[in-house]
Amino acid sequence: MSMRRGMTKSQEIAYDLRERISSGDLKGGEALPSESKMMTEYGYSRETIRAGVRLLIEEGLVVTGQGQGKYVREDYPPVVWNWTTLESRSRHANAVEGQTAGDQWASAVAEGGKAPRQDITVSIVEPPLHVRECLNLPEDGLAVARKRIRYVDSRPYALADSYFPQELVAGTPLMEPRDVSAPGGILASIGLVQAKYTDEIAVRMPTRQEAELLALPAATPVAEHTRTGYDADGRPLRCMVTILPGDRHKILYEVSTD
Amino acid sequence: MSMRRGMTKSQEIAYDLRERISSGDLKGGEALPSESKMMTEYGYSRETIRAGVRLLIEEGLVVTGQGQGKYVREDYPPVVWNWTTLESRSRHANAVEGQTAGDQWASAVAEGGKAPRQDITVSIVEPPLHVRECLNLPEDGLAVARKRIRYVDSRPYALADSYFPQELVAGTPLMEPRDVSAPGGILASIGLVQAKYTDEIAVRMPTRQEAELLALPAATPVAEHTRTGYDADGRPLRCMVTILPGDRHKILYEVSTD
Repeated sequence: MSMRRGMTKSQEIAYDLRERISSGDLKGGEALPSESKMMTEYGYSRETIRAGVRLLIEEGLVVTGQGQGKYVREDYPPVVWNWTTLESRSRHANAVEGQTAGDQWASAVAEGGKAPRQDITVSIVEPPLHVRECLNLPEDGLAVARKRIRYVDSRPYALADSYFPQELVAGTPLMEPRDVSAPGGILASIGLVQAKYTDEIAVRMPTRQEAELLALPAATPVAEHTRTGYDADGRPLRCMVTILPGDRHKILYEVSTD
Repeated sequence: MSMRRGMTKSQEIAYDLRERISSGDLKGGEALPSESKMMTEYGYSRETIRAGVRLLIEEGLVVTGQGQGKYVREDYPPVVWNWTTLESRSRHANAVEGQTAGDQWASAVAEGGKAPRQDITVSIVEPPLHVRECLNLPEDGLAVARKRIRYVDSRPYALADSYFPQELVAGTPLMEPRDVSAPGGILASIGLVQAKYTDEIAVRMPTRQEAELLALPAATPVAEHTRTGYDADGRPLRCMVTILPGDRHKILYEVSTD
């Protein structure tokens, strides 16, 4: 606990606590030592102790509980989504086993021994600019939006909003606000086959609304994952924007070098 | 500027400023209105104004400049890396044009009309646990680490640490702390060919060291991108851990559904 070269006192406290967290001495969900205890241990003022703890809150290693107590952040059990196979897997499973697969995401979660659930709302919207560009929609073109909050074991894990050009899906079961279980996926069920995807991943802090819908602790960044699906002729069929909080997700890809 | 339903005063200030930023009324790099001006405009206390601004700092929309001035965050010009083709492209270019390609990353950046530079240090290390697992290293196995800070137009853009099993690369040019320009990449130059990659992407706040090396503004999350490269027999040859700040990167993949 001696003063470390080039560190301020508060940085020193943050450094020590960081070490105790990464070594497992302080575990996820555990309370930090009380301010009084740290004041005695370090011989520093309450203000200095607080400044040190604040550094760890900004780094996302420590969260504030109810009653202002400070705890080591406890991550959700991470869900790993393999985006290379996510949408081909249920189709494949069907071909082989002849079962009815659910939504590809739901079946991926269920296979991991967890309980998937999603709340779906369907609406006809002017899509966000980014989505409009992905879908090659004209300026006045509308999209059908299927917005989902995805739960794993009753905890909110992700927001997933799919947008379809209105002309492609009007009058189909995609317009209904419920889970569409179809071999090959929701688009295949109406005769549209995605042959290729382009995925773009951006990393940022959540908006206020995202933080509320996903019950995010402070300092929890998200990946904004935008998947555009194309048919064999390169026509965009769907744009799916998924918000994946960093404390409950890993994103996986497999790439072969040909 | 009227009080919005269900919002506290500080949330109302954050809401208004957020709207002005997203509408472009307040642009990246521009100073926020002064506290005194906002106090007059809203009729709220200095403390309330500060609390509202603090909400936007936590969201990463506002940064604190020197002298404690508050500014709309100005993102770096984003660099888009296509991880599906990143490592095959220079090989391909060589095959076709017979030129000497540089490091794949450097040539990708140069093609975008920007100036790449990287500082490289080489060391023999006990790799982090995560890397040890990716490389299937025994408990006492060592790795050769090539750690790079990657600059674009003289600004730090990413940290990229490649780890190789020591037995594979000892005594080769990979041990030299300089850019290895080789058709097909650094491993191919010593006869090792990567046939497949597995990429795992995690999203988190930066460590203190990462924030310093990359000169990150507050509330800037990073992607930790771990690429493991395997030969045709499934033997791991390399594990590359890249730290990609969200304010200067997009990650791209192309997936075909076969």
